Amino acid sequence: MSESMQRPLDVLGQALEKKILVRTKFGETISGVLKAFDSHINIWMDDAKVQGEKEMNMGKVLIRGDNIVYISPEK
Amino acid sequence: MSESMQRPLDVLGQALEKKILVRTKFGETISGVLKAFDSHINIWMDDAKVQGEKEMNMGKVLIRGDNIVYISPEK
Amino acid sequence: MSESMQRPLDVLGQALEKKILVRTKFGETISGVLKAFDSHINIWMDDAKVQGEKEMNMGKVLIRGDNIVYISPEK
Amino acid sequence: MSESMQRPLDVLGQALEKKILVRTKFGETISGVLKAFDSHINIWMDDAKVQGEKEMNMGKVLIRGDNIVYISPEK
Amino acid sequence: MSESMQRPLDVLGQALEKKILVRTKFGETISGVLKAFDSHINIWMDDAKVQGEKEMNMGKVLIRGDNIVYISPEK
Amino acid sequence: MSESMQRPLDVLGQALEKKILVRTKFGETISGVLKAFDSHINIWMDDAKVQGEKEMNMGKVLIRGDNIVYISPEK
Amino acid sequence: MSESMQRPLDVLGQALEKKILVRTKFGETISGVLKAFDSHINIWMDDAKVQGEKEMNMGKVLIRGDNIVYISPEK
Repeated sequence: MSESMQRPLDVLGQALEKKILVRTKFGETISGVLKAFDSHINIWMDDAKVQGEKEMNMGKVLIRGDNIVYISPEK
Repeated sequence: MSESMQRPLDVLGQALEKKILVRTKFGETISGVLKAFDSHINIWMDDAKVQGEKEMNMGKVLIRGDNIVYISPEK
Repeated sequence: MSESMQRPLDVLGQALEKKILVRTKFGETISGVLKAFDSHINIWMDDAKVQGEKEMNMGKVLIRGDNIVYISPEK
Repeated sequence: MSESMQRPLDVLGQALEKKILVRTKFGETISGVLKAFDSHINIWMDDAKVQGEKEMNMGKVLIRGDNIVYISPEK
Repeated sequence: MSESMQRPLDVLGQALEKKILVRTKFGETISGVLKAFDSHINIWMDDAKVQGEKEMNMGKVLIRGDNIVYISPEK
Repeated sequence: MSESMQRPLDVLGQALEKKILVRTKFGETISGVLKAFDSHINIWMDDAKVQGEKEMNMGKVLIRGDNIVYISPEK
Repeated sequence: MSESMQRPLDVLGQALEKKILVRTKFGETISGVLKAFDSHINIWMDDAKVQGEKEMNMGKVLIRGDNIVYISPEK
């Protein structure tokens, strides 16, 4: 039952400094290294790449949490 | 009348470590094992699979609660 | 004037353990037995059936309140 | 200047037990008898009829306030 | 600099009992006499007329503030 | 570093009684003289002109802040 | 583990007086010099240029935070 003590945002705590994939409400997928997050799920990534209608290297990026559908750490 | 003492999120408490199906506002269905949730219905799933326009294995995933229409534990 | 003392969510209190019909913002109609609700109008239903583009039996389901347009108890 | 002491929701207080018409954000018009409301403009109606793509008699209905554009008491 | 002491909602205070025009997020224009408003910009109008896809006389109407784009008092 | 002490809404404080341009989420551009604003970025403008599908002179107007994408003072 | 002490908005603190690129929910890209921000991610930029359906020089601009998908400092 100790499992129930975990919280969803622990996924992000475990993924700090690792590669994650962020899916936005606008159909874009943004991959990069997770540097920081907060309780609104605002996300700071480094080496970020956007894959949407057009692909784009962005380097450092701040994603506002309310645009995010899901986040998945790299396997 | 003791039924009225139950709360909707008890469904999730009962489904911890079991398979659930999540329907998003974007028409995607995500299935996987429920690991944790909070009062915003943010969801952490393991072995997650997305069934939308394209199918995708994601492993560990955090879904932001405001994207979720409904959640159903596996029968 | 005692009528004005009633609150909208009393409709749900009266419908516990009875069949209800839920209309979502996505044009789906979900019917089932109301097991629990909260002040956000999050809803837990049993024996739930979704009627939308495709029909689906879901059993137990948690609907996040912000997706709901209206709820009607069965006559 | 005493007019400025009135509040918008007084319209609903005056319409209790009377026929109202509710316009939703989804282009539906729902008519019926107002039984109760709260500060979120959640609405409980009896003898409710939905006029949208298809017409439907629903009897008792709870409308979540955030779906409502406007409410007009019957003249 | 005394101008900066004014607040946007003063426009509504000055327009009480006068004709206003309300533009909704759904492309409708509603004209009528402003009777009351609150801090959410919920609006009670009398002699209200809706000009959208179809024109409609509604008499008394309560508009939920979150549907409103702008409000203009009659010149 | 004194720059970091500035706040975004200072742009509006500096623009009081001057011409501004407001872009709405509905693709409209509204120009006019800024008379007042609040922390929600609700805006009161005078001599307002809407440039959208159709152009319109509105005189005094209150714009609800949640419809605004950006505001630019005239150069 | 000191990394976890960082917060997402630190990206903006580091970018003050530098060039940033803002992506809005409406598909527009706005570039310019970051002058100030707040906890809602409201943004004040100078020398702002909008690249959307039509390109536009705007000079000083205030972007309401709820329209922003992501922000990237210039590399």
